[in-house]
Amino acid sequence: MALSSEENETLTRVGRGTPGGEMLRRYWHPIAFSDELRSKPIRRRILGEDLVLFRDDQKRVGLLTLRCSHRGTSLEFGHVEDGGLRCCYHGWLYDVEGRLLEMPGEPSDSTFKERLRHPAYKLQELAGIVFAYLGPNPAPLLPRYDVLVREDGVRSMSARIVHCNFLQMVENSVDQHHFKWLHRTPKTRHWKDEQLTSDLTDFGIRDTFTRRVGDESYRTISLFLMPNMNKVGYHLPEDHPAAFAATHEGYEALRWRVPVDDVTTMHFTLYFAPLIDGKVQAKIPKDQREQGLLDSIPGKYRWDDETGWIARGDQDRCAQESQGPIFDRTSEHLGVSDEGVILLRRLYKACIEAVQNGEDPVGIIRDPALNEIIRLVPGEHRLS
Amino acid sequence: MALSSEENETLTRVGRGTPGGEMLRRYWHPIAFSDELRSKPIRRRILGEDLVLFRDDQKRVGLLTLRCSHRGTSLEFGHVEDGGLRCCYHGWLYDVEGRLLEMPGEPSDSTFKERLRHPAYKLQELAGIVFAYLGPNPAPLLPRYDVLVREDGVRSMSARIVHCNFLQMVENSVDQHHFKWLHRTPKTRHWKDEQLTSDLTDFGIRDTFTRRVGDESYRTISLFLMPNMNKVGYHLPEDHPAAFAATHEGYEALRWRVPVDDVTTMHFTLYFAPLIDGKVQAKIPKDQREQGLLDSIPGKYRWDDETGWIARGDQDRCAQESQGPIFDRTSEHLGVSDEGVILLRRLYKACIEAVQNGEDPVGIIRDPALNEIIRLVPGEHRLS
Amino acid sequence: MALSSEENETLTRVGRGTPGGEMLRRYWHPIAFSDELRSKPIRRRILGEDLVLFRDDQKRVGLLTLRCSHRGTSLEFGHVEDGGLRCCYHGWLYDVEGRLLEMPGEPSDSTFKERLRHPAYKLQELAGIVFAYLGPNPAPLLPRYDVLVREDGVRSMSARIVHCNFLQMVENSVDQHHFKWLHRTPKTRHWKDEQLTSDLTDFGIRDTFTRRVGDESYRTISLFLMPNMNKVGYHLPEDHPAAFAATHEGYEALRWRVPVDDVTTMHFTLYFAPLIDGKVQAKIPKDQREQGLLDSIPGKYRWDDETGWIARGDQDRCAQESQGPIFDRTSEHLGVSDEGVILLRRLYKACIEAVQNGEDPVGIIRDPALNEIIRLVPGEHRLS
Repeated sequence: MALSSEENETLTRVGRGTPGGEMLRRYWHPIAFSDELRSKPIRRRILGEDLVLFRDDQKRVGLLTLRCSHRGTSLEFGHVEDGGLRCCYHGWLYDVEGRLLEMPGEPSDSTFKERLRHPAYKLQELAGIVFAYLGPNPAPLLPRYDVLVREDGVRSMSARIVHCNFLQMVENSVDQHHFKWLHRTPKTRHWKDEQLTSDLTDFGIRDTFTRRVGDESYRTISLFLMPNMNKVGYHLPEDHPAAFAATHEGYEALRWRVPVDDVTTMHFTLYFAPLIDGKVQAKIPKDQREQGLLDSIPGKYRWDDETGWIARGDQDRCAQESQGPIFDRTSEHLGVSDEGVILLRRLYKACIEAVQNGEDPVGIIRDPALNEIIRLVPGEHRLS
Repeated sequence: MALSSEENETLTRVGRGTPGGEMLRRYWHPIAFSDELRSKPIRRRILGEDLVLFRDDQKRVGLLTLRCSHRGTSLEFGHVEDGGLRCCYHGWLYDVEGRLLEMPGEPSDSTFKERLRHPAYKLQELAGIVFAYLGPNPAPLLPRYDVLVREDGVRSMSARIVHCNFLQMVENSVDQHHFKWLHRTPKTRHWKDEQLTSDLTDFGIRDTFTRRVGDESYRTISLFLMPNMNKVGYHLPEDHPAAFAATHEGYEALRWRVPVDDVTTMHFTLYFAPLIDGKVQAKIPKDQREQGLLDSIPGKYRWDDETGWIARGDQDRCAQESQGPIFDRTSEHLGVSDEGVILLRRLYKACIEAVQNGEDPVGIIRDPALNEIIRLVPGEHRLS
Repeated sequence: MALSSEENETLTRVGRGTPGGEMLRRYWHPIAFSDELRSKPIRRRILGEDLVLFRDDQKRVGLLTLRCSHRGTSLEFGHVEDGGLRCCYHGWLYDVEGRLLEMPGEPSDSTFKERLRHPAYKLQELAGIVFAYLGPNPAPLLPRYDVLVREDGVRSMSARIVHCNFLQMVENSVDQHHFKWLHRTPKTRHWKDEQLTSDLTDFGIRDTFTRRVGDESYRTISLFLMPNMNKVGYHLPEDHPAAFAATHEGYEALRWRVPVDDVTTMHFTLYFAPLIDGKVQAKIPKDQREQGLLDSIPGKYRWDDETGWIARGDQDRCAQESQGPIFDRTSEHLGVSDEGVILLRRLYKACIEAVQNGEDPVGIIRDPALNEIIRLVPGEHRLS
């Protein structure tokens, strides 16, 4: 049941030219918050590639490979000016698509700058998030998930570095069983007769987690969206015996686990709380965009003195990072409760094969009519 | 006289399957203090293996490989409860011998947990120290050295990480000549006519260091105990012209250099001071068990402004760490004064060969009659 | 135009036995300040070799390989005494040329210490700088550049570690074009019609940088001296529209970029300001010898809030370090303005070939008559 070394490599490696890396490059990925792109360029690593993002003086956003084509100095130290990004060393000026606008020092009749093109990728902004596409043309549409485009509520976001391979984080999404244990509270001890289901859908996997609490049964439905998202919705009040730890009723969360490289991941979280009677009723976590992309220290987890256990916000990171930089799946022992994880790996392999056969993997959208607003409804409710 | 690269590898590598590592696995090694094992498990690396220790709710101690057999999360973050150690991620519960007591989420009629056994090693406690055995069965007896079992005195202990291969530390034990130089004081300059002897014994090596001080001669006898211990006893008053630096009369020290991995070592020290007239007379160093296993920073050594030289407690570490992570013995030049080091390496090779031939190496005890109390008497005295 | 991988290796590797490393070993290199050698030895790495320097109790200076020939303990922890440097571990005593003066513990009739010789290199002191020679005998003369020997002025010095290959720093010296961009000020924007020349000379390369400022033209002449020096002189007042950033009239600077290893470089800077009317008129930077060899943190550059850009003193380091630990020159795109860089690489290749043919490379001086004082005059002036 455990994977072979080769299978583990296929599923976890993210670099250009690797099977998994090529599949991941067919999707748009969040790379920064719009607010981070002000007067200075910022450096980001994604899918093993070192890049620089900037917003030019006409508010266009650009994503270039990090090092200047001239003599390799990092463009993160460049100046945003004169319609582009100017390398600090000798003044070469790039526009958002990698065209050379100026090459100071070259003769005025030189055609050098027309003949050279700096590697650049596509960016799009939606809901205050900057999304990048590193794959072949034509790029698919940037999916307009409801929580990204709804106008009838508020959004709150954060982004943090986690120090392990992204697949450990993705597997956590389809592993409903861990809610009862990793996020345990005095309440979860009383949950009984847990039932899990995982089923393939057009966008990924639909998971359900049913448990008996007292005389009643409750079901949580969460959605895994290819290639690295999950979408959950909370409906039980905080003090309800079937409620998850540290959740409140009335908001949804969409999460992305974006590979920085093989052993590092950016975790983007977006919360959406709808207006009810013209007001936000849900207690959603605080927006942290102002702090940009936060780092974390592997092996250091905030402690909650009250519960005598790692704080809720660091529990997943602890479980995932301590599996190792790239979890060696050749030595695991999966059980019945790991059905979701097994299905996810099957889906990943199918998507990798689709790309190798020149087809679109699951979840790619190219028809604008299907992309006006994508409503995918997770949730939790009492079974009647 | 210098070693070949192959010889150096053989003597220094500690991992499972290496010649030296297999020999070292025939002995019990200190791994923690009993007081460290309270309500939470602790993580330790020994002989290149990542392990977790815990004391269950019935006070039994257990030593398991670090990562959960299920999906690899570190058991150092597990909960001690319900008769075992429970993985934080999905609640698998292990007893001290690696048996699965619970596998939440698996069907009640599943035989999965009976078919699986998590790798576990033996532990024993003596004198407040937890000893581990990582070798094949049957395990030998845990040697009951006098300073571990005597009731007529007090014990003081400490443990510290040193950042170099263990053999550099072990060689230091049989290298009597360094006392005069590395631990020099204004007194040692006046020592003359140093004579060294090193002889094989049933337990390891007996070293003597004789020097003339004024008109008299003094001899220090110290014992190297296979595979990584030394035992010394101090009898000269602190202000005696033949006394070693920072020692006081009346106590013994037993020291272990336990490989964490090829380039890191745990240094355990136990001092024993006997009661004389119902009172401890010796000034033994302060017990530091409460601080657990201390770390150190290679290249940083405490400075003693009074002597204008590295402080006594860091002199050995300075000399040993600065030989390199694994000292390259192909470029050394041994002299007559290195007789102890040469004999030690010969003993090590003989013990490695014994293990390869299926025999016990030097110092293994299997007869309880020989293990009631092992009296090995080091010391220092004036020659008549 | 870009280099092949092999060419890049040839030009950048500095270790013993590499083509570039052997060429660099034909020259004297600064390794420390005289004032650093007081009562304690100091450790330095140069051209990939770990060494220890000391000044013995008769004021002679010595440069030895770092680890004691006996058992490998670092001699940086040795004691300067008794006519040499004594290893802290067992007291072996070395003189400045690597001869064994004492081997405590060896029999008095032993010839061991006469048969053994510890590897040692030559040192010379000039102008408060200690220079090392790591090449074959006979060593060339230590060049007596005017700013090292002139008595009619004051010298100010500093030394700092930079975290990249030395060649990136050397190339910066012959790359006049970067003054306008990397060190840009409000003034440099108005410079027009830049003209660059680079020409081979007996000592290396002579570069000129001419620009039009308003109605007048100004020319800066700077000198690259094999293998890793540059010499510049400032003559324009600080507030002159053609003046470089953070320079003042009236002093010269001589700079060395000495390889520590392939990815680390010591940057030595010497400023010389002549006495005019018996007084120092120039505002030369503060002497920092008292702080010894300073380190720096790659990726961290001091910020100048006033200009909204990296501070002048860290601009070159930013551009050079961000090219990567060893800049991959296979992906660069050189232009007309890189003539100096291209010429420098050609000169380096010629010097490497000269050494391979048993000849002296450019700039080696063996005739004392040519070495009384080497006047090489850089500068900046208005073109008439």
